[in-house]
Parts: sequence; structure tokens; C-alpha cells
Amino acid sequence: MQILAFPDYCAQAERLACRLGAPFGLIELHRFPDGESLVRLPSMLLDHVIVCRSLDRPNDKLVELMLFARTARELGAKRVTLVAPYLCYMRQDIANRPGEAVSQRIVGQWLAELFDDVLTVDPHLHRISHLQQAIPLANAVCLSAAGAIGDFLGKRFDDAILLGPDIESEQWVSGIAAQIGFDYAVADKIRRGDREVEITLPDKVFKDKPVVIIDDMASTGRTLARTIGLLQNAGASTVYAAITHPLFCGDAEAHIRAAGVKEIWSTDSIEHPTSCIWLDSLLSDAVRSIL
Amino acid sequence: MQILAFPDYCAQAERLACRLGAPFGLIELHRFPDGESLVRLPSMLLDHVIVCRSLDRPNDKLVELMLFARTARELGAKRVTLVAPYLCYMRQDIANRPGEAVSQRIVGQWLAELFDDVLTVDPHLHRISHLQQAIPLANAVCLSAAGAIGDFLGKRFDDAILLGPDIESEQWVSGIAAQIGFDYAVADKIRRGDREVEITLPDKVFKDKPVVIIDDMASTGRTLARTIGLLQNAGASTVYAAITHPLFCGDAEAHIRAAGVKEIWSTDSIEHPTSCIWLDSLLSDAVRSIL
Repeated sequence: MQILAFPDYCAQAERLACRLGAPFGLIELHRFPDGESLVRLPSMLLDHVIVCRSLDRPNDKLVELMLFARTARELGAKRVTLVAPYLCYMRQDIANRPGEAVSQRIVGQWLAELFDDVLTVDPHLHRISHLQQAIPLANAVCLSAAGAIGDFLGKRFDDAILLGPDIESEQWVSGIAAQIGFDYAVADKIRRGDREVEITLPDKVFKDKPVVIIDDMASTGRTLARTIGLLQNAGASTVYAAITHPLFCGDAEAHIRAAGVKEIWSTDSIEHPTSCIWLDSLLSDAVRSIL
Repeated sequence: MQILAFPDYCAQAERLACRLGAPFGLIELHRFPDGESLVRLPSMLLDHVIVCRSLDRPNDKLVELMLFARTARELGAKRVTLVAPYLCYMRQDIANRPGEAVSQRIVGQWLAELFDDVLTVDPHLHRISHLQQAIPLANAVCLSAAGAIGDFLGKRFDDAILLGPDIESEQWVSGIAAQIGFDYAVADKIRRGDREVEITLPDKVFKDKPVVIIDDMASTGRTLARTIGLLQNAGASTVYAAITHPLFCGDAEAHIRAAGVKEIWSTDSIEHPTSCIWLDSLLSDAVRSIL
């Protein structure tokens, strides 16, 4: 097998290749002034090609992935695996109004046509419980960064309260808490639009305690910023945030920092200055398991 | 049949629907802060749906077209036709270096999987002579704006020299010239990169004559600007430009205007302040012909 990466996921893919002892190649990408993309693969491909790229800000990347996958087949690759630590379009899983495209299913189906395997980390699934319901492949593999985040926090803190942003995060946050023996709680979240959320803290004493908010993604950052503010009001001694996917759209990071967070840590699923929790060990185990 | 349009091609599609006496519907489009798109179709679809959108700055639009086409099928459309006056990815028709994705073929194949018919205007084909070689559909229809441009120029001028930018434009420009009885010539163009071109004017007397440069697209505008400058040096009395597709990437239009063009006219294939040559008559005839 051979690890290939688009330039935006190059450093992480090289670490993965290194762990697997597999050859690494960079995919060349050029965007023309008119918005079209030119994708160039290494001309020598092995039978099994693993392409690595997270799908934040996804539309350009999806078209480029299609150009990649179909060219890889033409150049003789027999098996093409996608490692997309951040997967896109996983939130639109029903038509909220008649006529809406259910993009989770359509993009999932498309990825299943292009790739033989899809590996991802902490996808934001709401109403489905298995990634295969979105991506109809036997090898649609859903990994969790919980272990890596737990390891990281366990080395930093003797004790802290872990706080999940909503009821859906309970299983995930309780797992991390159990792993390192910390206390945890989950807040209550109601979304009122792209950027508006209403948060209620759980009935717990945060006064004079360090709290780590744990979330699978920071997109507009409104949820995180609001929760940080509420924890400040509740007297928490220090507030930190640990997140899997640092999307940070627009002014999200500034918003979160202005709310008074002491530190933000994220995984390297998306390259960002806060990325300090590496996923190469998790991903290399997963790649080995599908071979 | 029913005409649907994305918001960026709404006015033109309404004119087309009006000419065809067909019901018109607008596709709702929302782009989330994280770069994902939400597409919503009218919930009542007829058996034959014609979706209209030009594919300049294409990657977002291609993903949205896929969301549209697959949802239209789910909602019961039996035939889905794409009218894309400007079609994307038609220029990368060979691998210039080993390993390059041949995007013309890959995107063409993809459009053929999504749609039953594809209608376009003056696609920039180099090494293939038929659109079906790129889009394997019996109804991959290639229209020309030459007639509409000729009508427009014939009403504006008693006489002018029509100038094509390169040898590939000769057939097209000579056709317009014959239609309105004007003289014509073609320049010689060598491309040296995305933004660098070298132009040589034909051996012809331009002194004190009005010249209309005719081109199928203005992308970075470098070809047009350079040609305008050469015509000024050759003593042309006035220089105009008539183009099918006003892409105008970045500072292209400013560049062209700074070169000393008196007026720029373009078709409405892409909505732009220079769009004054309407394609609704051409498109409505073509739609009738595939029914």
C-alpha cells in the first residue's frame, strides 16, 4: 500500500505513512484563476492507494477527490481507500422542509461509488447510529478521538470536570471521564439557526474548579463561546476546550478566545495552530485493521 | 416540462421559461458558515425537469448540481436536463504531464451520470471536435452564440473588422463575418502560463478602422488586454470586444478597460454588467429540439 495526501493534509499523512512504514506521495494541486482545479497523482501507483484529506470547506475538495479517485483507477489502482478524519455533509440527514436535498445520503453514496473504504473520526451523526447508513460500504469505519483526547488530558491534569456541550455528547464524554477517572457533566443545547444557540449548564458546582469543555467540532464557535461564558459566571477557576475538529469558520476562534478560555487544544484532523493531539496512532491501527 | 434555476442564473432562466411557456421555479440555495451547501427543490416536480445554471467558478456549483439531480430523481423526475450555457472543465482534455487528472473526461462522465441531456454554448474544446466525446450522452448539445453576437453587431455597425484571438477561433469568427458581411482576421496566440500569453496581430491594415475582438471567453483577460494594446499601436480608430462568456476572474475587467477598449459586450451566459446579448432565443430553440 501507498499513502497519498493532498497538500492540506500533508504533514499528518506523512506521520501516518511513517507509522505504517508505507511509501508516501504528495498529490499536486493547482487552482486556476477561474476556480477550476488541476490534480496530479504520482505516476506510479501501487495496487492499494490510501488517500488522506479532511473535508472541511468541502466542495472544492470533493470535486478534487473525484478527479483523484477516477484517475487513480485509470492509472491502475485496484483498491482506493479514503482517510478523511473530518468528513463533510454528515449533519443534513433528513429533509427538514419538503424538497431539501438530504446531502448526508447523497454525498455518502457518492463517496461509496468513488472509494472502496472510508475511514473517519468522530463524524457528527444525529439520527443515524452507523456510518454505513450514510456511506454504504462494508468498510465505512468510524473512529473516535476520545482515547487520544483522554490520554492528552490525563497527562495535563490531576483533576478537572469534563463538560459535554449537549446530551448527544454524553456517551463520548463519559467514556473519556472513565478512561482518566475524572468527573463529567453535559449541558443542554438548543440550536436556533446557523449561528444562534441556547445553552443551559447542568446542575453542578463549577465554583473554583477547572473545567474542560469537550466537543467533536468547533464550527462557528458560538456553542463553545456561550458555554465558556456560562462557566465563568458559574465561578469555574479556569476553562479549557478540547475538540476533535478545529473547523473555526470565520471569526470563530477570536470569539472563543474573547469568551475567556485559557487554552484550546484540538486534534490534527484539520491543520490548525491549536492542533496538538495527533491522530496518527489511531489512524494507523485502523488502516491495519482493514487490510 | 418545468424550468428550474439556481439563484445565480435566475433572470436568464425566467426569460427562457417565458419563451417556452413553461412553469418556472427557483431552487433555494444556502451556504453554511462551514462551506457546506443546502439545496432545496420545489416539492412538486413534473416528469421533465430542466435545470439552468452556468458553471463558472465551478466546484461549489458542481456539488450543488449533484445534490439537485439526485434529489430530483428521488422526488420522481423522469428526465433531468441540464442547461449550462457556460460549461466548466472543458479545457483540460489531456494529461500534459503523467499522472494529471483529465478533468474534461471525468467531469463530463459525471455529468452524463447525473443528467439525461446537457445543453451548452461555445464550450472551449481544443483537441476534441464533438461535445459527446467529453460528455457521453446522445443529447450532449453544443450551441453557438455566434448568431446572436452577429445579430447584435450587425445592428450596431455599418462596418468593422472582426478579430479572432487565435487560429482556433477562425471558423467561428469567419461565420459571424459572413453573416453580417464584415471583414475579419485572426491573431496568433501562444500561451505561456495561467496569466501569460504572447499575441501576434495578423498582417492586415487596422489603421483608422473600428475593430471588434470576438472571443468565446474572457477569463484572466490577459489575451484581450494584450490584443487591445496591439490594436491601439496599429492605429485602430476604436477597439471593442464581444465575448460569449464573461468570466472576468479577479481584476480581469479592470485590466481590459485599462488597455483602452471602448465597449465590452457579452452574452448573459453569466450574469455580468456587460451582458447585453441574450441567449434565450437560442436556448429555447435548442430545448424544443430535444423534446
